Amino acid sequence: MHALPHSTGTAGAPLDLSVDAAELTARLVDIPSVSGDEKPLADAVEAALRGLPHLRVDRYGNNVVARTASDRSERVVLAGHLDTVPIAENVPSRLDADGVLWGCGTCDMKSGVAVQLRIAATVPEPNRDLTFVFYDNEEIAAEHNGLGHLAEHRPEWLTADFAILLEPSGGEVEGGCQGTLRVELHLTGRRAHSARSWMGENAIHAAAPVLARLAGYRPRRPMVDGLEYREGLNAVGITGGVAGNVIPDACVVTVNYRYAPDLDEPAALAHVREVFADCDIADFVVTDHSPAARPGLEHPAARAFMAAVGGTARPKYGWTDVARFGALGVPAVNYGPGEPTLAHRRDERVDTAVVRRCEERLRAWLTGPTGE
Amino acid sequence: MHALPHSTGTAGAPLDLSVDAAELTARLVDIPSVSGDEKPLADAVEAALRGLPHLRVDRYGNNVVARTASDRSERVVLAGHLDTVPIAENVPSRLDADGVLWGCGTCDMKSGVAVQLRIAATVPEPNRDLTFVFYDNEEIAAEHNGLGHLAEHRPEWLTADFAILLEPSGGEVEGGCQGTLRVELHLTGRRAHSARSWMGENAIHAAAPVLARLAGYRPRRPMVDGLEYREGLNAVGITGGVAGNVIPDACVVTVNYRYAPDLDEPAALAHVREVFADCDIADFVVTDHSPAARPGLEHPAARAFMAAVGGTARPKYGWTDVARFGALGVPAVNYGPGEPTLAHRRDERVDTAVVRRCEERLRAWLTGPTGE
Repeated sequence: MHALPHSTGTAGAPLDLSVDAAELTARLVDIPSVSGDEKPLADAVEAALRGLPHLRVDRYGNNVVARTASDRSERVVLAGHLDTVPIAENVPSRLDADGVLWGCGTCDMKSGVAVQLRIAATVPEPNRDLTFVFYDNEEIAAEHNGLGHLAEHRPEWLTADFAILLEPSGGEVEGGCQGTLRVELHLTGRRAHSARSWMGENAIHAAAPVLARLAGYRPRRPMVDGLEYREGLNAVGITGGVAGNVIPDACVVTVNYRYAPDLDEPAALAHVREVFADCDIADFVVTDHSPAARPGLEHPAARAFMAAVGGTARPKYGWTDVARFGALGVPAVNYGPGEPTLAHRRDERVDTAVVRRCEERLRAWLTGPTGE
Repeated sequence: MHALPHSTGTAGAPLDLSVDAAELTARLVDIPSVSGDEKPLADAVEAALRGLPHLRVDRYGNNVVARTASDRSERVVLAGHLDTVPIAENVPSRLDADGVLWGCGTCDMKSGVAVQLRIAATVPEPNRDLTFVFYDNEEIAAEHNGLGHLAEHRPEWLTADFAILLEPSGGEVEGGCQGTLRVELHLTGRRAHSARSWMGENAIHAAAPVLARLAGYRPRRPMVDGLEYREGLNAVGITGGVAGNVIPDACVVTVNYRYAPDLDEPAALAHVREVFADCDIADFVVTDHSPAARPGLEHPAARAFMAAVGGTARPKYGWTDVARFGALGVPAVNYGPGEPTLAHRRDERVDTAVVRRCEERLRAWLTGPTGE
């Protein structure tokens, strides 16, 4: 047996940015980077970017940020995460006869990362200053999120007028994102033996008006910055009961309010309290909150972007890291080649034609007239 | 260190049946007999009974049955369980200045066992043939219950016209017992991401009419054999939810129907199905059932018993082992010195005056005129 202690494996192979974004996607997929194990890929990305003289490259942990400094009047961020969900026997990648590339991360979101890298390599003199952000740990608990770490510790690296997150959006622009608030509604009662139920007060029965309110709830569909959002207020959990012969004294209904970006957290919580105002709730406990982000499509850079990529912007219903840009005051949209519904699947895949189209449209936007 | 391998401890001391039931209760409490560890007490009870020539004594496991054979026209069972819940620093027993005896099992139900033993010892020629049943494992899962084992494997030992279970009933007669039926009501839906809740169907919301039905339910209070029972239909558990961001596709409400002894299991289940008939229940799953028992107070032996012990019979709301006699076709009542609300408590106790009164009244009934 012969040890090869310094073998660098695939991760050590130089990343060739001269191939198109579709081919580059395949090469990125073949460098595994499950959350927590992004270092080899971050190293390869950093090395490739350092070969581009028009970029200043910085690194914080496994987060790599590259910036042009051409004194343009606008600065745009192109951001994507390097990590994937765990591999499910779907690496290395495989290209089929229809031009569909299969494998872990093809959709979410190494195809987006490939587009970022191609723009970085092929647009040395962009019409807007560019900031490329590659970050780690997006697929796991929020506290590990690399974009969050950058926002906290290196916010100056993220300064911009507009941001594009290349998360899967089917090659269409999805603006902003809805907020998500989780609140426990605590109902109380008084225990008793179930053979003498009249001695107690049943906390599960006390949840009847809460569920009736939820069942009859009519969610809002407000227009925000020209996009129609679609809210939802749902029970995502209910628990109650002490034992099979006890009238329960506690029941907790956990509701998830997905709210449009015309509300902030206090307004969202106030709405939840109002919906259940007469339901005799003993306690409202917020367990989780991620703010909404406005789509920011009124911004000149965003208008020009929409004109360049074409199509009609859709509202983003789910929560994404665009909200982290929103919190920094940077309007942001999702625009990536992957189909959102194919993310995280064993049969994850991406249409390479859409990957190439994204690359071309972004390049057109960043090299054409700015409208200034 | 000196081992005493054959020491028999307290359990080996002969059980003296010449002391009154109150004093005998204290001695029984001082022989620990937590469920599963009844052997020393069963041995002591068996040995004491074998010293009484008017009784035939049989044993099955740790269940001891002693019978007179005087060819009377009626036979009555006096039954009690030997086991207790776990000791909570409340053994040995302690008699206070007010005549209250404290300790594990004082109430539930070694005071009743003491009364049984005293009747066995002091009524050698009863006016009705007597069967004394001492059984194990009443305080744990039904499958271990010694009375159940006797009913299955030695039913001929339990043949009788009437049975008295000396479970805590505050020195009053509590007739029969209500049945208890537990049913899971399964509600279904369709999963979706909670950011796109309109793609799914929320199974927790689907429970709204079930809880409304429960909250508005008016339980029956039927008269059965002259006693007014009091039913109850309650949620004793509810569970639903997949994850904080998923519209749940399943919710289960567990209801407990405590029903009067004019119903049997099929009728009880039919009632539950009827109550929730229009609630879109995907499945009714019976998880647990113990039948009701009629009080049987119309029986001549029961009438004479009531006349002898005095007072007015009350309905028994909770489920007790009287139902096992009911299932064998033997009418049964609860009549024991303990206060039901003091059972299973760290501060479990019994009023020794009530213990003595129970002993005296039973003796009066079993030695007086039979009314034949």
